[in-house]
Amino acid sequence: MHQSVTAEIISIGDELLYGQIMDTNSKWLSEEMDKIGVRVVRKTTIGDDRESMLDAFEAAAVKADIILMTGGLGPTKDDLTKSVLAAYFGSKLELFPDALEDVSNLFHSRGKELTATNRGQAYLPSNCTYIRNGVGTAPGMWFEEKEKIWMSMPGVPHEMKYLMQQEVIPRLKKKYQLPVIYHKLIRTVGIGESWLSDLITDWEEKLPSHIRLAYLPSLGEVKLRLTGFGTDQESLASEVEAQIEPLLPLISKYVYGFNDDILPVAIGHMLVNRGKTVALAESCTGGYVSHLITSIPGSSDYFNGGVIPYHNEFKKAVLGVSAEVLTSEGAVSEGTVRDMARQVRNKFKADFGLSSSGIAGPGGGSEEKPVGLVWIACDDGQVCHTRKLQLTKDRTVNIHLTAIAALNLLRETILQTST
Amino acid sequence: MHQSVTAEIISIGDELLYGQIMDTNSKWLSEEMDKIGVRVVRKTTIGDDRESMLDAFEAAAVKADIILMTGGLGPTKDDLTKSVLAAYFGSKLELFPDALEDVSNLFHSRGKELTATNRGQAYLPSNCTYIRNGVGTAPGMWFEEKEKIWMSMPGVPHEMKYLMQQEVIPRLKKKYQLPVIYHKLIRTVGIGESWLSDLITDWEEKLPSHIRLAYLPSLGEVKLRLTGFGTDQESLASEVEAQIEPLLPLISKYVYGFNDDILPVAIGHMLVNRGKTVALAESCTGGYVSHLITSIPGSSDYFNGGVIPYHNEFKKAVLGVSAEVLTSEGAVSEGTVRDMARQVRNKFKADFGLSSSGIAGPGGGSEEKPVGLVWIACDDGQVCHTRKLQLTKDRTVNIHLTAIAALNLLRETILQTST
Repeated sequence: MHQSVTAEIISIGDELLYGQIMDTNSKWLSEEMDKIGVRVVRKTTIGDDRESMLDAFEAAAVKADIILMTGGLGPTKDDLTKSVLAAYFGSKLELFPDALEDVSNLFHSRGKELTATNRGQAYLPSNCTYIRNGVGTAPGMWFEEKEKIWMSMPGVPHEMKYLMQQEVIPRLKKKYQLPVIYHKLIRTVGIGESWLSDLITDWEEKLPSHIRLAYLPSLGEVKLRLTGFGTDQESLASEVEAQIEPLLPLISKYVYGFNDDILPVAIGHMLVNRGKTVALAESCTGGYVSHLITSIPGSSDYFNGGVIPYHNEFKKAVLGVSAEVLTSEGAVSEGTVRDMARQVRNKFKADFGLSSSGIAGPGGGSEEKPVGLVWIACDDGQVCHTRKLQLTKDRTVNIHLTAIAALNLLRETILQTST
Repeated sequence: MHQSVTAEIISIGDELLYGQIMDTNSKWLSEEMDKIGVRVVRKTTIGDDRESMLDAFEAAAVKADIILMTGGLGPTKDDLTKSVLAAYFGSKLELFPDALEDVSNLFHSRGKELTATNRGQAYLPSNCTYIRNGVGTAPGMWFEEKEKIWMSMPGVPHEMKYLMQQEVIPRLKKKYQLPVIYHKLIRTVGIGESWLSDLITDWEEKLPSHIRLAYLPSLGEVKLRLTGFGTDQESLASEVEAQIEPLLPLISKYVYGFNDDILPVAIGHMLVNRGKTVALAESCTGGYVSHLITSIPGSSDYFNGGVIPYHNEFKKAVLGVSAEVLTSEGAVSEGTVRDMARQVRNKFKADFGLSSSGIAGPGGGSEEKPVGLVWIACDDGQVCHTRKLQLTKDRTVNIHLTAIAALNLLRETILQTST
């Protein structure tokens, strides 16, 4: 039988209370705990303040089995977590030789001398287990006290994630008999939440009670998450997969991937499997689509390159877009994005040429071509598919939505080309 | 004399604990409280659960003067806030005729009939002051109990913001003599937190007690935040600015801007002020530097364009990098980034050419050129400044750190060129 295990997340830092930074850590930690079947029962955010920390530690000890703490571990003096933890546990800060070795090595590998301030980072509460942070100088600290697990991590997101993935999650799985949970994420693009819901409502009503559906909308995409609860991993997995089978035909046009396969990853797989390549000509997206594609490891196998011709002059001179089209139709037009896609495909000897041109805003709009008007095109050498978008007044949102739409157009073009 | 007034923010909703949505409300509320001089002392997130709510209310009553609650006010049954508040205050839910009128009017204006479920939204705790929500059906509720203010608002961001801006903030300003607060953010790049701390430690120790310093590190940058507390806005502003005056010479090399001026904005100002332009040749950053620059409104005034030659073939064919240098030194080398910067500057007729080439990882490394090795260059037509970086094993981190370092190299080059 599995245990019902609960967690509290404590985020520490004045900057969180003053609203200067968004607490992305606690959302990420919530998701990770949810995935392994640990129920988060509270999240508490407090400042760099001794009394608040002690209060929070005492309250957490009553509420949860696992207490995950982030923040307050930097080398400077406004960071208190370590000494307050020692005080709370009635232990003392002492030098951990392995922590000192790790922080020294990190400094040497970067060609820098260890400062006294950074040396201080190797002093930890004597009752903790030192957990190596492979990507930064702030240590991880694991405590087991009165049948509770306490884990203190730095607030820098990639350091916290490293510690969680490499150390904390494996240790928690070992320590507790966690319930069996099976998640499957179905990723869709090109359809809004309510339309998606209308398409699958009959299917949704027939779901058994131990399998739950959640809609997770984000800018330009909607994810469906199925969560099954059971006692046996294998049979639970087949039960959830059996529910997905009749779902897919209802929404096949929009489904691009599952679980962690974000859109640029899915497109990468499609290109690799077909031995094809892509090149980008980005005007209004200003390099963002290329960035999304090249963020994926191994993208050099299918991304040949790109051009960002931000002015008409360079659309002509660098990319070879027709001066006539630019004059007659303008930079934000079907003719221009067609030409951009075709030219960049040739220039980089790619199988697919993908292009964008639009008025991202907030300036540059006119009555005829308002802010948010965007054209995208994808050329496969035979056919050039184009799409016109009318987006928002917000520059950042427009860049993001255009990028998603362009990647989706590439996806659709690849699918049509291969048949 | 002003009062020292504190607030706690309580966010209610299972979806927050499971990590399904980002709690943007509590960040926004924190910022708004900070602006009017109310000190947020804790944020608590709990689920749609009676016991957790009662615990949170009791703890908040001890901790803060103002308790701002969001969430749990929808018409569906998992929303409990209202009845738990009534239980906590020992009052009862009763029909508020003005609330019923407002919700009825809203439905009529949308051409819909009021359902029994929505009629229930007009039942509120008898001890509350009903606060009209002009943009939705969930009511605002204001309580004054035992010298504390309690305000319950819906979790839908634009409804919550409407209530805060129209009603809550004006009421709080009337109720309390709030202190005067002055914040100034000093933005640095190219130096780590502990080195920065070492440079300014003498200055820091002389700060008066009503002006506080905080270090806010993020990937590749460190921000210093000075917060002054006083009674008069104008004199407090000059006091804080007077403290910044002797600070700047100590770290002038690293300071690129103040307050909201992020690095690409600061560089935009520098280029516009000098009437100069920039072009990018990005290999390992894959379009990310161009994306950061073009995310800023008005960037078309100084960003001419860019090329992302992701393979040697296109570094030669599209950008005109010397085949000899590529063969003798390799793609990740000082010679190659020099050539890339020079060529892209010419191709796009820009004043500055900025380039990157490196092994972002996780694959592609060798003993001689390990993952994380990056070269960047900036050419101003006279001099080409180059820099070698040895970064991490993480692709995303390497791309980000390279982009920040490249923007900083551009910044330094602009400064040197103008003298």
